[in-house]
Amino acid sequence: MVVVTEPGATEKQIEEIIRVLHEHGFDVHRSTGVRQTVLGAIGVQPDFDHRQIQLLPGVAEVIRITDPYKLASRAFQKEGTVVKVGSAEIGGHDVVIMAGPCSVESEKQIFAIAEHVAKSGARVLRGGAFKPRTSPYSFQGLGEEGLKLLRSAADAFGLKVITEVMDRSQIGLVERYSDVLQVGARNMQNFTFLKELGKASKPVMLKRGLSATIEEWLMSAEYILSGGNMQVILCERGIRTFETATRNTMDIGAIPVIKKKSHLPIVADPSHGIGIRDKVIPMARAAVAAGADGLLIEVHNDPDHAKSDGAQSLFPDQFSEMMAEVRIIAQAIGRRVP
Amino acid sequence: MVVVTEPGATEKQIEEIIRVLHEHGFDVHRSTGVRQTVLGAIGVQPDFDHRQIQLLPGVAEVIRITDPYKLASRAFQKEGTVVKVGSAEIGGHDVVIMAGPCSVESEKQIFAIAEHVAKSGARVLRGGAFKPRTSPYSFQGLGEEGLKLLRSAADAFGLKVITEVMDRSQIGLVERYSDVLQVGARNMQNFTFLKELGKASKPVMLKRGLSATIEEWLMSAEYILSGGNMQVILCERGIRTFETATRNTMDIGAIPVIKKKSHLPIVADPSHGIGIRDKVIPMARAAVAAGADGLLIEVHNDPDHAKSDGAQSLFPDQFSEMMAEVRIIAQAIGRRVP
Amino acid sequence: MVVVTEPGATEKQIEEIIRVLHEHGFDVHRSTGVRQTVLGAIGVQPDFDHRQIQLLPGVAEVIRITDPYKLASRAFQKEGTVVKVGSAEIGGHDVVIMAGPCSVESEKQIFAIAEHVAKSGARVLRGGAFKPRTSPYSFQGLGEEGLKLLRSAADAFGLKVITEVMDRSQIGLVERYSDVLQVGARNMQNFTFLKELGKASKPVMLKRGLSATIEEWLMSAEYILSGGNMQVILCERGIRTFETATRNTMDIGAIPVIKKKSHLPIVADPSHGIGIRDKVIPMARAAVAAGADGLLIEVHNDPDHAKSDGAQSLFPDQFSEMMAEVRIIAQAIGRRVP
Amino acid sequence: MVVVTEPGATEKQIEEIIRVLHEHGFDVHRSTGVRQTVLGAIGVQPDFDHRQIQLLPGVAEVIRITDPYKLASRAFQKEGTVVKVGSAEIGGHDVVIMAGPCSVESEKQIFAIAEHVAKSGARVLRGGAFKPRTSPYSFQGLGEEGLKLLRSAADAFGLKVITEVMDRSQIGLVERYSDVLQVGARNMQNFTFLKELGKASKPVMLKRGLSATIEEWLMSAEYILSGGNMQVILCERGIRTFETATRNTMDIGAIPVIKKKSHLPIVADPSHGIGIRDKVIPMARAAVAAGADGLLIEVHNDPDHAKSDGAQSLFPDQFSEMMAEVRIIAQAIGRRVP
Repeated sequence: MVVVTEPGATEKQIEEIIRVLHEHGFDVHRSTGVRQTVLGAIGVQPDFDHRQIQLLPGVAEVIRITDPYKLASRAFQKEGTVVKVGSAEIGGHDVVIMAGPCSVESEKQIFAIAEHVAKSGARVLRGGAFKPRTSPYSFQGLGEEGLKLLRSAADAFGLKVITEVMDRSQIGLVERYSDVLQVGARNMQNFTFLKELGKASKPVMLKRGLSATIEEWLMSAEYILSGGNMQVILCERGIRTFETATRNTMDIGAIPVIKKKSHLPIVADPSHGIGIRDKVIPMARAAVAAGADGLLIEVHNDPDHAKSDGAQSLFPDQFSEMMAEVRIIAQAIGRRVP
Repeated sequence: MVVVTEPGATEKQIEEIIRVLHEHGFDVHRSTGVRQTVLGAIGVQPDFDHRQIQLLPGVAEVIRITDPYKLASRAFQKEGTVVKVGSAEIGGHDVVIMAGPCSVESEKQIFAIAEHVAKSGARVLRGGAFKPRTSPYSFQGLGEEGLKLLRSAADAFGLKVITEVMDRSQIGLVERYSDVLQVGARNMQNFTFLKELGKASKPVMLKRGLSATIEEWLMSAEYILSGGNMQVILCERGIRTFETATRNTMDIGAIPVIKKKSHLPIVADPSHGIGIRDKVIPMARAAVAAGADGLLIEVHNDPDHAKSDGAQSLFPDQFSEMMAEVRIIAQAIGRRVP
Repeated sequence: MVVVTEPGATEKQIEEIIRVLHEHGFDVHRSTGVRQTVLGAIGVQPDFDHRQIQLLPGVAEVIRITDPYKLASRAFQKEGTVVKVGSAEIGGHDVVIMAGPCSVESEKQIFAIAEHVAKSGARVLRGGAFKPRTSPYSFQGLGEEGLKLLRSAADAFGLKVITEVMDRSQIGLVERYSDVLQVGARNMQNFTFLKELGKASKPVMLKRGLSATIEEWLMSAEYILSGGNMQVILCERGIRTFETATRNTMDIGAIPVIKKKSHLPIVADPSHGIGIRDKVIPMARAAVAAGADGLLIEVHNDPDHAKSDGAQSLFPDQFSEMMAEVRIIAQAIGRRVP
Repeated sequence: MVVVTEPGATEKQIEEIIRVLHEHGFDVHRSTGVRQTVLGAIGVQPDFDHRQIQLLPGVAEVIRITDPYKLASRAFQKEGTVVKVGSAEIGGHDVVIMAGPCSVESEKQIFAIAEHVAKSGARVLRGGAFKPRTSPYSFQGLGEEGLKLLRSAADAFGLKVITEVMDRSQIGLVERYSDVLQVGARNMQNFTFLKELGKASKPVMLKRGLSATIEEWLMSAEYILSGGNMQVILCERGIRTFETATRNTMDIGAIPVIKKKSHLPIVADPSHGIGIRDKVIPMARAAVAAGADGLLIEVHNDPDHAKSDGAQSLFPDQFSEMMAEVRIIAQAIGRRVP
């Protein structure tokens, strides 16, 4: 932490600031400038609220100088983490494509989609069994039956499974059927839940909250990592801004930022990021071009009759077209879509 | 729903749009203008995703015309809901002050604060027993022991209790000790949790999510109301914007907007809304002036050594000063702070 | 500026960082911690781009420690600036009310409104002669004719005049008719214009840009102050956020923040801040309660037929009602609305 | 415009709403539903403020159904506009690269950079002669001398010129030296300036304002188009959000959105969009992958000593590397970087 004093701060005020910093266990280095004094407070006090110092008389500004996360940082681990999902390696050389419907609706639906996406090169099947909806009056998912269908469809076509787990009580259940546990954007700061996921036996994909900064997102990953589960994948899915022409604003810039700040792999979900079918493909291409380690894509065999998010789901043929394009883009930057 | 066609839409396209609307159960009224055709689609299909229509050829725009919430709306219930907490009436003529520390830390602390705020005119004691923190390394609260201390301190000084409940599994426990169940901003869209709160026996105070629109906030209230619990209080506590000079941007404008759109009472939490002690009082005054039905204020007997949020907690004397000021402001608009 | 190194930074990297800082004219104080080194770079280099250091190998973070504005800061001038507009003192003990129509439309209109607002206690008449509109097809104002009408209506009822000046070429013209030059939100960062205003003979009221941080706003004030015009009034008029229920989100918190950071007076414009008539009064009350030095209110004698912004203009009777309420609120905090 | 009544609206209220709509020149079509009545108001009243209707008793919601811009819309012109800059065609099959320093600093600098970018495939040379800076104490550009240097460097290496024009008074001067007139983000809603640009003899590149919606951006383009200048290029350069890890949030999604809503070409400026050198290349790739018609890239031969924005300028070698990558990406989507 660095404390900068006001131009007119008195010696007495500065000494009081130093006293308080010492009281909280910091070592203090003082640099006296012509107009202002700078105090470097060295030491790690994870619980310390820097606003405590900001309110002292004579203080102009207090600046936190260490990232509040540790295990998630690139400084902690230089090489990128590779999360293995079957033979797919998320964070490795390949760009891993995960695809499937928003919700599992029926055996026929999920098998048809699984077959198509597998043939086109996807490695992981996505699909929701529990649907958290903004409206209490909307379709809420098939539950465990949906998990079973998802698993058998994936197995039938050599795919792995990713699906959302909604709260603590569901972790055991979802672990039985899924290879990756997906945490939704609305749960990104559900800390008691994140702690439990730290003890889960499967990798976790953590979606970015709608208004979460990159730092907060990494703090949430830290909750999982500090519980002992080192298999965490981040997923950019759009943030909320003033723009209303798109459902969300997809923060493509977060991809290179995460690559620099953290060793964790990052994938992109353009279906939610842009929210309307006819713009999903350009955004998928952009994410791969920016360096994403994977994509999460909504595909439906009959999107016009989908029970949820049909409007942002690709038709099977569009998915194949997208795969052909991202294959070339991956090569342009020295990677591969298998 | 209203569907507007593109200027050059063909008759065939328009007929197809009408066919799809009929298929989804809507009655369609057609207005043919010189440049564009407008289709009014009448009927209530709560599960319908209007983007399904937006993607049809010839469609320029699709506009949802009914608010997605019903029980929470002023149209559903003309007179304002009054939530009784002991003899205090939130949403009635009085502006109800709820005050106390961020976290319950010890018997001595909570009794000292309870005594002071009761004497100054507060009616409800606030205090956290379970603390969700951004960092996994921070103080996480006293748990049930904190609830017991809170209850006995409130009882000792004639106050009622409000405290946060973190997830489904805690509802029964917190109901035993608290008069109002507080739902934190990060849980505003935790829908499985909200459903359970719809069956709770105590009123619920629902904080606005950091990036929630007013409409989404009312949708979340709808989840609780539709479960049968009609005792819901809304709480504005600041939203996230680009401004970094304050912890959050307190959306004072939400107070008159809620008053018009909904019958539910709305209170304000300036401590979180502005996030730094020396600006809490002006924001508390502003909230009362704008018509808030109550205030939630963090007060600490020794904020410099508080275990959480000390920097935004008022000193006891400041709280008394604030009470004196909001008393006059309440009178200016025909209300009363007891 | 403070430079924090990465945990694994080598001695060689640190020396190179110090060399570059010296090259740019900074004095460097080094604090070596266990995990990281902190370099305090002392010296004022207004032109220096701190991202230059951020890109050096071994650097974790670079933090600017001095506010980039000087003349606008409270540190530069302890007592608040008082801007005199006739006998009204903006920034003094009184809360000064400025009111009038969005646009000057006719002699009859402006005289009727001026008479009413003067009788109710307003001190300054507002009204636009040049109207910048989002659409090129909308009413664009009466021009100089509007300025003349505004001046004569104000003189007839003992009021002073505030009106917007749109660009450099209009400054001389508007100075002839107006007592305060208003700079609109869209011009807040039109720097060549601000420089010219630094030489103007009249006070300037600088509206906050729609997406301007408080720091940028003060930087824009600095442009005017550094040109020699020390009579600057700030005006909060709402910022842009994700919320769509209101035209803008009025940042009431900016009022106490500005009061702490700067000596310049700050007024509020709730008409633009909330954007719809039925919520202007609560927001006006909130702004006064939060400590605003004045209000800018749109009033129209026939808002249903106003040529611009009728929907956010108060009826004359509502204006009188608002005045009665803010009078009591001002007293509650030791101020006065005359 | 569509007007939706409140559930309990009386017949008398509805008739009054219809009367007011007729008074303003609208044809009204009425659809009476079980709970609510929908009124379609047909007619084009560019000056009409829909909030006038929103305030009438019995009105629940008013929805504008036509885009407020016309000449800029894809409905007005089906085929995309191609802006010719010498032999380069912006909006055509090729992706046109525009590159150069933030500011023109010296003959040596601009010639060195021009030579390098021309060799690597750029078609247009960028560089600022007038620099609007947030701080009044920063470098403000070389002025006309800079324009001359820019022109001669471009001519020497077969490039065209793009440079910023700051206000109305500079248009004639900049037209003499530049092939494209660039309008900065801060001027996007400087309407008197936009009107003048409508009469300019050169194409205009209009940067998106920091907090401008896509609709407002197209409205600003409309100002130029309606003045008679049909050669308008849009430029996405990042918007302001709550995220502070990057200078701006580059809204890559705006690229496909603009492509659908408008016939105007759109280019991307990743240098400003992300704001730090090491992330410019991934963002440039993403923009091309998403369908941008061109790129605007800051390149400097000695960025560590650049007078402005050095930290976001590429080294010449990085620029060549970027060109190689975007060439392959352009091919992946059926386009070409020459």
